Amino acid sequence: MKIAIAGAGAMGSRFGLMLHQSGNEVLLIDGWAEHVQQIKEHGLQANFNGKEVEAKLPIVLQSEVEKEDQVDLIILFTKAMQLEKMLQDIQSLIKKDTEVLCLLNGIGHEDIIEKFVPMENIYIGNTMWTAGLEGPGQVKLFGSGSVELQNLGDGKEAAAKKLADKLSESGLNAHFSDNIHYSIYRKACVNGTMNGLCTILDVNMAELGKTSTAHKMVATIVNEFAKVAAVEKIELDVPEVIAHCESCFDPETIGLHYPSMYQDLIKNHRLTEIDYINGAISRKGKKYGVATPYCDFLTELVHAKEDSLNVK
Amino acid sequence: MKIAIAGAGAMGSRFGLMLHQSGNEVLLIDGWAEHVQQIKEHGLQANFNGKEVEAKLPIVLQSEVEKEDQVDLIILFTKAMQLEKMLQDIQSLIKKDTEVLCLLNGIGHEDIIEKFVPMENIYIGNTMWTAGLEGPGQVKLFGSGSVELQNLGDGKEAAAKKLADKLSESGLNAHFSDNIHYSIYRKACVNGTMNGLCTILDVNMAELGKTSTAHKMVATIVNEFAKVAAVEKIELDVPEVIAHCESCFDPETIGLHYPSMYQDLIKNHRLTEIDYINGAISRKGKKYGVATPYCDFLTELVHAKEDSLNVK
Repeated sequence: MKIAIAGAGAMGSRFGLMLHQSGNEVLLIDGWAEHVQQIKEHGLQANFNGKEVEAKLPIVLQSEVEKEDQVDLIILFTKAMQLEKMLQDIQSLIKKDTEVLCLLNGIGHEDIIEKFVPMENIYIGNTMWTAGLEGPGQVKLFGSGSVELQNLGDGKEAAAKKLADKLSESGLNAHFSDNIHYSIYRKACVNGTMNGLCTILDVNMAELGKTSTAHKMVATIVNEFAKVAAVEKIELDVPEVIAHCESCFDPETIGLHYPSMYQDLIKNHRLTEIDYINGAISRKGKKYGVATPYCDFLTELVHAKEDSLNVK
Repeated sequence: MKIAIAGAGAMGSRFGLMLHQSGNEVLLIDGWAEHVQQIKEHGLQANFNGKEVEAKLPIVLQSEVEKEDQVDLIILFTKAMQLEKMLQDIQSLIKKDTEVLCLLNGIGHEDIIEKFVPMENIYIGNTMWTAGLEGPGQVKLFGSGSVELQNLGDGKEAAAKKLADKLSESGLNAHFSDNIHYSIYRKACVNGTMNGLCTILDVNMAELGKTSTAHKMVATIVNEFAKVAAVEKIELDVPEVIAHCESCFDPETIGLHYPSMYQDLIKNHRLTEIDYINGAISRKGKKYGVATPYCDFLTELVHAKEDSLNVK
């Protein structure tokens, strides 16, 4: 199978590498020139569960995708704010039958993808795999994970299941879901609580969990997500989702980690994805007439923090 | 006149010094042993508009106030969370005719004072004077200011005016107000926006003002204060109050300063007064059935920050 990974950062590189190792023809596409250059010259260098791996994967700058390139599947793995630009740049790659699988963090990306891809070819999902970018061309890939995905197009369940099987052949542990929007909202609640709160308070997840007000803040934010989801006929099990979010506090598992938004903004002074997590809930809330003040305020605080650090 | 200053920190010391300089008999009362000891041994040392002043003012630990001490007026100048303990400790000083003037920052202190002082003897106000504590027994007093005050007791307007005149004799520039609750709410809006936001975002007021979301956050918080005040028949001029708050952004005036809450928590790792500013609005909102989500969330964030810094 010919597969393009549109957005070859840490997670895109993981998927690209694993799909390549099981015999697929993989093309990496990215917008970061230094990263692209490194992989062109030295291959993708991965610490893959402790073993050093070098994979000679073809990679191209997204602005230099060739008209004659052709793939069966595109997996979207950009940062949320880079999605639309990526789709514009790779438009020539999206043919009548090209399947497009979106695995970005956050909510509502299908609104953008639909502008470029016919609905029947769109699959959305989320993943529990993790990955870390060590530097240009270098990734660190540890642990295990899974993928859930579903078709957006009517009658494409069989194709979605086939796509999941295809990914599982590479060890990606993918499953068809008949309720992917539930899973996406559930995961977005984790990001919508841990990311923004740890970033603003300058703490890791275990430290957040130890504060006297963490539970009240997490519960209020999850309730806002649930009210918005309910308008879309997705009924979150609120106590379960709150417990799921708060399981991140455990220092024995992932509590000592700083969430990705903290790493983006506080550590690396990069823009955050807040507009596609809490900000997406604010926009939907406005559209649906549902009040989402904690999501509004948290989005504003994170933007103010971006501004104060001069991140653009 | 015999005047006790209950809470002889920076502002209490200013008032004590100025009242002493114009011939009143002033007794300082405070709970900080090191500060009390310094003033006992070396007097109050003040840089008063650039001039070094040493004033031999009597000072006593609040736990050691004597039954036979007697004063005409007590000016309350504690931190908000220390008010009730102070009133308990100085209870023997509060006689049938002792006037009590509360000049604390924040909202709703009269609810506590009423437990110790008959309503007809209570005066509340606020002040635009500033003061800085340099260390135990040492204060820095610059610039000019003013005081507004009003009686809580019926028919005590004349007494309130007399009290203002008395303060003005010492240069404190005090005025009777017939709408002190308006002034207190207006000042609380400044504290309720600048203090919490600068503390959580780790910025000074000018930096806050430069962020893209500052205006939205300030306006939303002021609107919550206004909704709560309206239940108490105090109709804030919201656009004027927002402009008043945002005048703090000006780097030419006070924009480059970090508000007192930032200094308390981030610089000195002390507990904040958030429960008596945004937290007071949250409690009143709950009581009145008025939603105050930005004040709720900001109070929770500041408490989480206190907890994460292990401040107790």
